[in-house]
Amino acid sequence: MPGTTLAPVNESTWLEKVEVVLVRPETPGNVGAACRAMRNFGLSRLCVVGSEGITTTGQARAFAHGCEDMLENARLCATLDEALAEHVFAVGTANRVRKSKLPALDGPETVIPEIAAMAVRGSCALVYGPESTGLTDSELARCTRLLRMPTAVDQPSLNLSQAVLLVAQECWRHTQNDVAPEPILEDAPTHSEFHLLLERAEALMLRGGFRPYAGNPELFRLAARRALMRGRFERRDLRTLLTMLKALEKLSD
Amino acid sequence: MPGTTLAPVNESTWLEKVEVVLVRPETPGNVGAACRAMRNFGLSRLCVVGSEGITTTGQARAFAHGCEDMLENARLCATLDEALAEHVFAVGTANRVRKSKLPALDGPETVIPEIAAMAVRGSCALVYGPESTGLTDSELARCTRLLRMPTAVDQPSLNLSQAVLLVAQECWRHTQNDVAPEPILEDAPTHSEFHLLLERAEALMLRGGFRPYAGNPELFRLAARRALMRGRFERRDLRTLLTMLKALEKLSD
Repeated sequence: MPGTTLAPVNESTWLEKVEVVLVRPETPGNVGAACRAMRNFGLSRLCVVGSEGITTTGQARAFAHGCEDMLENARLCATLDEALAEHVFAVGTANRVRKSKLPALDGPETVIPEIAAMAVRGSCALVYGPESTGLTDSELARCTRLLRMPTAVDQPSLNLSQAVLLVAQECWRHTQNDVAPEPILEDAPTHSEFHLLLERAEALMLRGGFRPYAGNPELFRLAARRALMRGRFERRDLRTLLTMLKALEKLSD
Repeated sequence: MPGTTLAPVNESTWLEKVEVVLVRPETPGNVGAACRAMRNFGLSRLCVVGSEGITTTGQARAFAHGCEDMLENARLCATLDEALAEHVFAVGTANRVRKSKLPALDGPETVIPEIAAMAVRGSCALVYGPESTGLTDSELARCTRLLRMPTAVDQPSLNLSQAVLLVAQECWRHTQNDVAPEPILEDAPTHSEFHLLLERAEALMLRGGFRPYAGNPELFRLAARRALMRGRFERRDLRTLLTMLKALEKLSD
């Protein structure tokens, strides 16, 4: 946005709109190494979900190697929903094909240009799960896209900071192509706006006698999120949907 | 070569001809992480120069995460000359521009296709220096090419295992293009064959009264190596040069 206090080194870059979100990281060294990897390719915003105190450990600082400021400035959140609240686009990283209720895995050649396009409109998140387990299905379902970096073998999977490095490099390379990103949305809804709509829709459906299949509300939520996030809604589309929802809510009063 | 005992998974890949050579690595975890990074992109041959015992430490094994076999099978050498002896091509990794006596820094887009082409004829080395100092000038001069991976910033430099990861990824990507590498040499001389020629030439020159400039024989060796390795010699060219040298040696007897 013109007129903000942020003064990026290169105004044409969208990298300052990208935040790396590490969900429950387990190894302090990986958090530090992730900072160094990010700076190597021009990313500077880090968010840590859970893992209280991990950014201030000696191991994290040692591996940050000159990027201790990124650890100090890291945004600390209790939940992924809190972390994603103001983002307009979230890319979850995953290694293997998941349940059919989730978005398909895409490669960097399709996902990175989307990030570039969305970053013009708002902040975007690159979401990484814990080293040992990766993101849960529920967390993956909160992402707009799922990204899988191609490798020669499936196992061993990429180390956390190595995975951060490869995606950061792809983002930076995209900026080096000197192609101005094409804005694909006028005004993109944030994660929390989507979340609100989904919650209200579900509550209304339950009042109307809806019972999620297999008696599993979480399974329904995965499918609903995937369907809703697939559309490239503008914020005004979400407002329209919310208006419709309110009308229905009144009907059921 | 057809008829060898090696049976690569994919016969079209040249990755099994590439050896990663870590010179005096300082942090065991980086050696383990380098193994994991290599396997992620189809490299399997590791050589460690100096740093006695580093491959058997608990930290190295912990970071190898499923690639402990690569640590166990690592070739251990006392010197870089010993490590490079049988290689036909050596790529040194460097971060910043060095002295004019050394080869220029190239990017992966020029160096990786060269490795692919040379790997058809013999084994190739990717050489990395110690974390804190990088390769010395004398070590860089032993490399046929110097590679610098482009990053957004010069500092912090890439962590050792991160640098291994990025080059391994570039090599693997090159194999994925499905372009059969074009052999550029019929029969490439090894590092030790070059070394022998240089030593004999220098000895003869000294006997003939030659005094290296600034009284510094090492400075002359850097320049001589750079000049000689710049040519794309076949082994028979080296034999020709050696024949000429022997004739000159007799003259000076």
